[in-house]
Amino acid sequence: MINVSVMGGSGYAGGELLRLLTSHPSCELQAVTSRRYAGEPLFRVHPNLRGVTSLKFQKEDPETIISKSDFVFTALPHGKSIEVVPQLADRGLKVIDLAADFRLKDPAAYKEYYGFSHPHPDLLEKSVYGLPELHRNDIKKAQLVAVPGCMSTAAILSLAPIVSDGLIDPNKIIIDTKIGSSGAGVNLTLASHHSERAEGVRPYKVSGHRHVAEVEQEIGYLVGKGLRVSFTPHAVNMIRGILSTSHTFPNNPIEPRDVFKAYRSKFESEPFVRIVSDKKGLYGLPNPKVTVGTNYCDIGFEIDAHANRLVLFSALDNLTKGAAGEAVQCFNIISNLDEKTGLNFAGMHP
Amino acid sequence: MINVSVMGGSGYAGGELLRLLTSHPSCELQAVTSRRYAGEPLFRVHPNLRGVTSLKFQKEDPETIISKSDFVFTALPHGKSIEVVPQLADRGLKVIDLAADFRLKDPAAYKEYYGFSHPHPDLLEKSVYGLPELHRNDIKKAQLVAVPGCMSTAAILSLAPIVSDGLIDPNKIIIDTKIGSSGAGVNLTLASHHSERAEGVRPYKVSGHRHVAEVEQEIGYLVGKGLRVSFTPHAVNMIRGILSTSHTFPNNPIEPRDVFKAYRSKFESEPFVRIVSDKKGLYGLPNPKVTVGTNYCDIGFEIDAHANRLVLFSALDNLTKGAAGEAVQCFNIISNLDEKTGLNFAGMHP
Amino acid sequence: MINVSVMGGSGYAGGELLRLLTSHPSCELQAVTSRRYAGEPLFRVHPNLRGVTSLKFQKEDPETIISKSDFVFTALPHGKSIEVVPQLADRGLKVIDLAADFRLKDPAAYKEYYGFSHPHPDLLEKSVYGLPELHRNDIKKAQLVAVPGCMSTAAILSLAPIVSDGLIDPNKIIIDTKIGSSGAGVNLTLASHHSERAEGVRPYKVSGHRHVAEVEQEIGYLVGKGLRVSFTPHAVNMIRGILSTSHTFPNNPIEPRDVFKAYRSKFESEPFVRIVSDKKGLYGLPNPKVTVGTNYCDIGFEIDAHANRLVLFSALDNLTKGAAGEAVQCFNIISNLDEKTGLNFAGMHP
Amino acid sequence: MINVSVMGGSGYAGGELLRLLTSHPSCELQAVTSRRYAGEPLFRVHPNLRGVTSLKFQKEDPETIISKSDFVFTALPHGKSIEVVPQLADRGLKVIDLAADFRLKDPAAYKEYYGFSHPHPDLLEKSVYGLPELHRNDIKKAQLVAVPGCMSTAAILSLAPIVSDGLIDPNKIIIDTKIGSSGAGVNLTLASHHSERAEGVRPYKVSGHRHVAEVEQEIGYLVGKGLRVSFTPHAVNMIRGILSTSHTFPNNPIEPRDVFKAYRSKFESEPFVRIVSDKKGLYGLPNPKVTVGTNYCDIGFEIDAHANRLVLFSALDNLTKGAAGEAVQCFNIISNLDEKTGLNFAGMHP
Repeated sequence: MINVSVMGGSGYAGGELLRLLTSHPSCELQAVTSRRYAGEPLFRVHPNLRGVTSLKFQKEDPETIISKSDFVFTALPHGKSIEVVPQLADRGLKVIDLAADFRLKDPAAYKEYYGFSHPHPDLLEKSVYGLPELHRNDIKKAQLVAVPGCMSTAAILSLAPIVSDGLIDPNKIIIDTKIGSSGAGVNLTLASHHSERAEGVRPYKVSGHRHVAEVEQEIGYLVGKGLRVSFTPHAVNMIRGILSTSHTFPNNPIEPRDVFKAYRSKFESEPFVRIVSDKKGLYGLPNPKVTVGTNYCDIGFEIDAHANRLVLFSALDNLTKGAAGEAVQCFNIISNLDEKTGLNFAGMHP
Repeated sequence: MINVSVMGGSGYAGGELLRLLTSHPSCELQAVTSRRYAGEPLFRVHPNLRGVTSLKFQKEDPETIISKSDFVFTALPHGKSIEVVPQLADRGLKVIDLAADFRLKDPAAYKEYYGFSHPHPDLLEKSVYGLPELHRNDIKKAQLVAVPGCMSTAAILSLAPIVSDGLIDPNKIIIDTKIGSSGAGVNLTLASHHSERAEGVRPYKVSGHRHVAEVEQEIGYLVGKGLRVSFTPHAVNMIRGILSTSHTFPNNPIEPRDVFKAYRSKFESEPFVRIVSDKKGLYGLPNPKVTVGTNYCDIGFEIDAHANRLVLFSALDNLTKGAAGEAVQCFNIISNLDEKTGLNFAGMHP
Repeated sequence: MINVSVMGGSGYAGGELLRLLTSHPSCELQAVTSRRYAGEPLFRVHPNLRGVTSLKFQKEDPETIISKSDFVFTALPHGKSIEVVPQLADRGLKVIDLAADFRLKDPAAYKEYYGFSHPHPDLLEKSVYGLPELHRNDIKKAQLVAVPGCMSTAAILSLAPIVSDGLIDPNKIIIDTKIGSSGAGVNLTLASHHSERAEGVRPYKVSGHRHVAEVEQEIGYLVGKGLRVSFTPHAVNMIRGILSTSHTFPNNPIEPRDVFKAYRSKFESEPFVRIVSDKKGLYGLPNPKVTVGTNYCDIGFEIDAHANRLVLFSALDNLTKGAAGEAVQCFNIISNLDEKTGLNFAGMHP
Repeated sequence: MINVSVMGGSGYAGGELLRLLTSHPSCELQAVTSRRYAGEPLFRVHPNLRGVTSLKFQKEDPETIISKSDFVFTALPHGKSIEVVPQLADRGLKVIDLAADFRLKDPAAYKEYYGFSHPHPDLLEKSVYGLPELHRNDIKKAQLVAVPGCMSTAAILSLAPIVSDGLIDPNKIIIDTKIGSSGAGVNLTLASHHSERAEGVRPYKVSGHRHVAEVEQEIGYLVGKGLRVSFTPHAVNMIRGILSTSHTFPNNPIEPRDVFKAYRSKFESEPFVRIVSDKKGLYGLPNPKVTVGTNYCDIGFEIDAHANRLVLFSALDNLTKGAAGEAVQCFNIISNLDEKTGLNFAGMHP
């Protein structure tokens, strides 16, 4: 059994981690921290854990965590992981960070997108972007994994094989994302107030969303040079889930088999990517509803011959494949476990 | 008082018409037809009309309608209006049709998008596309008005001033639409079954949606030649409303004032278009929630300097400004009434 | 034109008042106060008012309000109205208060239910409980009207005629209420956070809810003595609306006609009460969905012969008939206007 | 491995069964029938099963099922199970039926509640009502188990210990239930049409709901005589879940400890019953949201001293503990497996 702890367990991604780790057969959850809820049982914040664990939140004390753990998951706010991760790493622990603090390779990007100078550019080099479908080998050897952003994961997974195969013009990628309210986290805001959120669609961060930087970094690697993508998220009336719609434009005429080939060659043996492009049935294309609670990313596409367009869709649960599930998948990889361990929930219908 | 009737009053757009006409101060609702509900009070189908009107649905008998009415609203299924409208028009009635049967000028488009040969190409020439913001003068004199599709209205209104002013490349327009369940109508389908629809986002008719033809027709007029737009709708968890997001690309560097100028020059005196582009507040950009029950189309934008993109948003209620409200607005125009007559509901918060 | 002002216009009930008053043909909205939003246009908070009014929130200064107004609506938090109403009343203004500060006749009840000693017991005597269906004549002459609580209105209206006619045992009334999120107001709470509220049903204030006091007061009047009702609200996934289910037990065997008679004799000429008890159609019993945005209270019932039970249902929009609409109805009564003035919105389907 | 089959796998309860059985470690799913979808892969109907199983629906042929299976789950419509179960039972298979066909012991009740004469009263005697918390020992030895109705399960579990301990008057039980749309199944109806269902609360089957018969049967056993309960369900805007609120009246003054004692003495070692009655936190009382996808039934209560009332709450997922999960729990019991096998999903937050 691997001893694991979670720092910052009272948010939604942290709660999802706790759900996954408490039922994970190869790890023992040793400690969970929360400044606000120290002393309270986990189930007071995450009611689904009632009867599942009797653990309580404890104060955020790195030394205690270090003494109890081989592995630490940090689910702290952006800019807060950076304060504890170096210490954990120095002491030899493996760390999987769910914040954005180690996702970007370019220190300058932190200034631009997060508004602070990154104090540990060395760790940016060392950390691995935790997208197994692109970086599995590096994750295996990583001491520090930065779990990708939820919308980044969705967009990158649908785009990477297509861009790699040179099917589209990488300078004409328009990503239009729809996301549920849990993506905005547990902090109270008017935007997430039920009466304001329900029965609406609200565009936000129309340009300059932080996840753009990740998409450009990862897709940029694949094309071998910088690129700029168009990216706009929309808050919809849904709790969990992301649908990422990428409008792309083929360089040359393409057929469905070209697209299937690109996806299959990259993802055929991926345990958590499903190609969903059936042309029949209500769920013949990705719909985040199907992925709720699972670690799947469903990917589909349609060719629009009329406008010479290739439309890519990807759907996932922002808290699972978009955060905590991806973290556990990375944990499994590093720990030489079957990648699906603890992640076998199939999702529900309806 | 103008005597009006509604043919096909049991659907959602028909019901919305009944709501608006029963409280319209200048018209008298004479008859409402429904094959299925003939003999039943209107409120059996549209429960909001209880206590508002004691009218009953009657059989679909054109002669009765003709004898009672100066004006007829047809809210029949696509392909059914065409069977009654010629008769109504021949007998001198004014007709406002909410179906698609007279929206497209090119008869061949009916074959392509609706699967039938249009039997009355002459009426296609005669009919006016009922978008007051573009065709007010023609509507004034029209005998037959074809009310635009709901998603077409949203897209066209946000695009027309921008295209007219030559701000963007008209061959690179990507429209990504989010629509509520009432847009799919009252007919029972698995896609609209609550358990399947709620808590999801479902792309459908990814290419080739019928509303594309209208957008291309109307925007094509403005640029003086044919064009092809990219258009994909998404079914979201919402009852009423459309958010249309148009990703466009400026020909030359633009400033916000250029966009404001384009919109204001065309829409400043429009009674039902609001420019919503505030950069502050939760509702600083269009959100269909705000337009529910109203005849407003809210339009906003943001310039994405990073990707050289101009993102346009428009929000409206698919049943009001997207159907019945637009029909009443056209009725007011033809009838020389104040255009806002009977359309003064301000909408709700929250 | 009557000059009216609103003190406390940034909450949901205040916003609903502003919607109603800005389109009310017989009054002129002079001033709207908000401590938090002074200086901001009303539409910044209530986006539906964009294009409807250019008024701005102003500071809460009673003297300014007094100088501009004949009538003041106070939509301040419970316990805050009490601080300004006496001054307004002293200066001869008519006041309609949407808070609870003047609803209860028994000063001791404020201690029990609201936790403070009421500083103006004299005003409790003077104020009129603003339920037109029970107190129309007193409202006509009132200087100070206390608008009932939303759940109280729903419960009382369904119960009053039945209790008055002696059809049921008044000591065996169980009220089970379902309410939308707007009932909890605009203040941010975890309970109203979209991710927590959506897709759930949450009982709260299982006993001792403040609205019990109003129900017992009003039903107590009718039976001529004190009584105790069972009352439990449930927060459901809905924005606006209340469904109040009252489980009651007949004293003697009853027939539907007895119940219809009780309701019709009291409510037949009520402009805003509809008897909805059809035994057919999807909307044969009250459903708050039908009342959204309207001032209707829909009332229905069913006799359960098996368990010797009479089940009463009432549905209304908590912000309209349950707050601001009822306030405007009282305003119309006091002002000798047609009671439906400014309240003619029919509601929507769907 | 136990060979199991599912007859009638295309509905919602059937789909939930398939989700549970495909991940159940001790059984092998051999065949799934569906008249409508024979030949289609399971994932065409239940999209969550994509990548989970490659099984296809097959025709409803009892002989094939018999040849392949030790155990059959029948998830056929009410009145259809009765046509196949006798044959399966005759051939020695164990059967767990999710329909109502074998739930009631009194053949006459089928006439009253389901409108048909039960053709196999002998099987009614033989079948066991599959509520493990009340009938575990009988289930162990059963050949035919009738899985309780979803609302019955919720109501009975909250009431049984309280009634058994004589804490309340069993002749004054009022059950007010709130249920999600999946409870109405996959069949298309206007009541389940998204536009009609969303944002409303609709009472239905106000008296005479079929689940009453089960509640009266089971609670009647406990009190040793017939009784009549008041029962009314309400359709709310939610996909999965039931909240059952039972308003009951103590015979004598009671304290919280009396209620806790009743529940604990009966349910302390139950694997799927959680006592949720904390008086703190947002989830201090049962909320079906917490149980989605799980086999838990959460039970809580509050004493209303004011009205001398004891309010009981129970929450569960109608498709899991209310149908398929309960079926699997019974299967585990009969098969001498750990009762939690295959049912360890903890549920989600949010």
